[in-house]
Amino acid sequence: MDMTRLEWLSAGDAAQGIRDGLFDSEQLVQACLERIRQTEGEVQAWQHLDEAHALAQARARDADRREGRPTGPLHGVPVGLKDIIDTLDMPTEDGTVLHAGRMAGRDAAVVARLRAAGAVILGKTVTTELATYAAGKTRNPHDPSRTPGGSSSGSAAAVAAGMVPLTLGTQTNGSVIRPAAFCGVYGFKPSQGLVSRHGILKTSRTLDCVGWFARNLDDIALLAEVLCGHDERDTDTRVQASPPFLRMLAQEPPLPPRFAWVKTPMWPQADADTHEALAEVAEVLGTQCESFDVGESVRAAWDWHRTIMEAEMAFNLDAEWTRGRDKLSSSLQQQLQRGREVSALDYQHAQARIPQLVDGFDELFERFDAILTPAAPGSAPPLGNTGDPVFCTLWSLCGMPALNLPLLHAPDNLPMGLQLVGRRGDDARLLRSARWLVRQLQAA
Amino acid sequence: MDMTRLEWLSAGDAAQGIRDGLFDSEQLVQACLERIRQTEGEVQAWQHLDEAHALAQARARDADRREGRPTGPLHGVPVGLKDIIDTLDMPTEDGTVLHAGRMAGRDAAVVARLRAAGAVILGKTVTTELATYAAGKTRNPHDPSRTPGGSSSGSAAAVAAGMVPLTLGTQTNGSVIRPAAFCGVYGFKPSQGLVSRHGILKTSRTLDCVGWFARNLDDIALLAEVLCGHDERDTDTRVQASPPFLRMLAQEPPLPPRFAWVKTPMWPQADADTHEALAEVAEVLGTQCESFDVGESVRAAWDWHRTIMEAEMAFNLDAEWTRGRDKLSSSLQQQLQRGREVSALDYQHAQARIPQLVDGFDELFERFDAILTPAAPGSAPPLGNTGDPVFCTLWSLCGMPALNLPLLHAPDNLPMGLQLVGRRGDDARLLRSARWLVRQLQAA
Repeated sequence: MDMTRLEWLSAGDAAQGIRDGLFDSEQLVQACLERIRQTEGEVQAWQHLDEAHALAQARARDADRREGRPTGPLHGVPVGLKDIIDTLDMPTEDGTVLHAGRMAGRDAAVVARLRAAGAVILGKTVTTELATYAAGKTRNPHDPSRTPGGSSSGSAAAVAAGMVPLTLGTQTNGSVIRPAAFCGVYGFKPSQGLVSRHGILKTSRTLDCVGWFARNLDDIALLAEVLCGHDERDTDTRVQASPPFLRMLAQEPPLPPRFAWVKTPMWPQADADTHEALAEVAEVLGTQCESFDVGESVRAAWDWHRTIMEAEMAFNLDAEWTRGRDKLSSSLQQQLQRGREVSALDYQHAQARIPQLVDGFDELFERFDAILTPAAPGSAPPLGNTGDPVFCTLWSLCGMPALNLPLLHAPDNLPMGLQLVGRRGDDARLLRSARWLVRQLQAA
Repeated sequence: MDMTRLEWLSAGDAAQGIRDGLFDSEQLVQACLERIRQTEGEVQAWQHLDEAHALAQARARDADRREGRPTGPLHGVPVGLKDIIDTLDMPTEDGTVLHAGRMAGRDAAVVARLRAAGAVILGKTVTTELATYAAGKTRNPHDPSRTPGGSSSGSAAAVAAGMVPLTLGTQTNGSVIRPAAFCGVYGFKPSQGLVSRHGILKTSRTLDCVGWFARNLDDIALLAEVLCGHDERDTDTRVQASPPFLRMLAQEPPLPPRFAWVKTPMWPQADADTHEALAEVAEVLGTQCESFDVGESVRAAWDWHRTIMEAEMAFNLDAEWTRGRDKLSSSLQQQLQRGREVSALDYQHAQARIPQLVDGFDELFERFDAILTPAAPGSAPPLGNTGDPVFCTLWSLCGMPALNLPLLHAPDNLPMGLQLVGRRGDDARLLRSARWLVRQLQAA
């Protein structure tokens, strides 16, 4: 453990170091704040950061330890939150002037779980406008002329820049996997229904999903154990025991996992570097990987996703539309206008396709452990837009778990994402397969 | 137990009689078939009835007993099914020529539960067109010039005529409570999410609800215990233990129950006899009953119900519309046309009102055990239409449990319904309160 660079510790190592008395939460949070002071001018990852409040939380967690109070798995570890996740003690402004200064007066369900696990809520990270497409101020830590991706822009950038070991984001289309790919960090979007969305800006009941960013797989699993669970305030959360993420991740797969390199009809939109990188991964995997063309059978899925997303956005952002339509970006205005014109008939037909698609992929998972696919068409494009979610849309629609592995680089050395997608509800197996894959590629 | 009139036994007494060896299932089914032969010409309750097949089932159940095989709580007891409930061994024609001769090739979830409980599936009862408004052939057993109500027309009439002790129906607006009221039998529509709709014609995911008919409250509770339970094929069924219907019904309430005589904005649509009858009930109940005007706060609920019902019907009956629109009644064509024009925005807004309404009524149930309200504007109107569901719409929208008590009569001696409505999810308490009320009114 490199004690001179606490800010680069993983969350698991940081929690262990605090438990072992090697350092305390205040020192850890100080190191993160110092790193933020150094890099925030360029990266602009934070929407709200109150150093004194963060340090006060850290000291309270240190007092817990000294005074023998119960501690949790993230005790004393700082976590950043996308600024659409409600917090009792900080504003939540949703990336729009319409919500400037908004105090939610409550903690989101995931925030309550983080606090119960002992986490220090470091601050709120920059989101695009209402978690949709119009970019915020954040720049890519690897190249400030590039986008960090969106909509969880600040959350991905903050982890990549060593400002904080863990952040939460959300994904409705590609808002976790894409920024994770562009910023070169692990990003995880679990199966729909595992994590409560209570207290988080609603854009789409069907598609909105909490996700998170970290610098290694163990931290992804650690946070999964903290965040997953039924919540009666989000009736779409499933009433089942949470998957045993950490135990599964610690296991070797019973057999070497098999990967389906799935080429959707969007495959040609990936750039040449991405085509080449995926081919190299497939070559390393040899007989453990099989190319799979899902082709025309799923081509309409992108339309179904748009129908559902825009119709549900029109409903959930109806108050903003009514109150301050002129304060919204023109692209969002156009989206909402289209959403208002969707018929209930088309909306229901699109909804009805989801279980059919999931059933089709379930069959694939009888032969394969995970789907291998790009996370984005290429590395991060220039600032101005947040990149194309086209390689995430299908998995968001299906509510399948998706993971970005930051293992690839473009010729100019910018990160390129490799996306692994698992069977819906089989999140822990996805993480176990991912660990195996990471080791294979790092050994190659 | 009057052994000369087996067809008029309750299901509970019939099952007990078979268990005690007083008669066998074949004798019971023979008695029901004989009653059907006598009355079916006038009542026309059945869409499909195969005497030989019914008797074969009865003999098989009798053989179970003789040969020591497991028996269930309805062992040997005949049950009729609305002809939109799929059965492996009989056609299910959904009240439309478009589905003439349709063999579903499966048992609905409720049918599988009935068979597991030992029931004899006697046959399929007449439904209105696709469980909507256009009347079938059935006539009211109390007066063949009157409607039996709909859409579960044959199910209500068959129980009223002594043809069978139990039948299943469904309610999307007023299709169980209304025919129960017009035919003078007990009818129960449980809370939404208690009974699986797998294998039943879908018209509205939000509103469709299985219900049933019997000649006493114990049979209502007995069937509830058989039918309630989670089914992963109907993801709207709740994952909770079923209410203890029979145990609750056997208990005295800890305090005399309190009834809220709720007058909705539809109250003026009830006829003078209904106004008078409700006032008499309130008088008998004295201080246990309080009049309650929910007034304008719920007036829009009937519009929200129509928006949801018509939008979901347009989706679920899209194949029928496409394939044979000209074979549908003109009123159904108009409904479907309106449903196709509903926007996804209005549809979602209407959906979002439901939990708000339920929360409002939940407050009422902190002071009251049940809501007292008419089941219909009056007694059964003349044949031709199936009567007005206006006194059921609000409770169907809210997914609250509703019960018709056949305790009132119009001056011309036709049955008039008294509807009791319970807190959503508190179905067993509703039955217990109902038993108390029945005793009070019968003693008065």
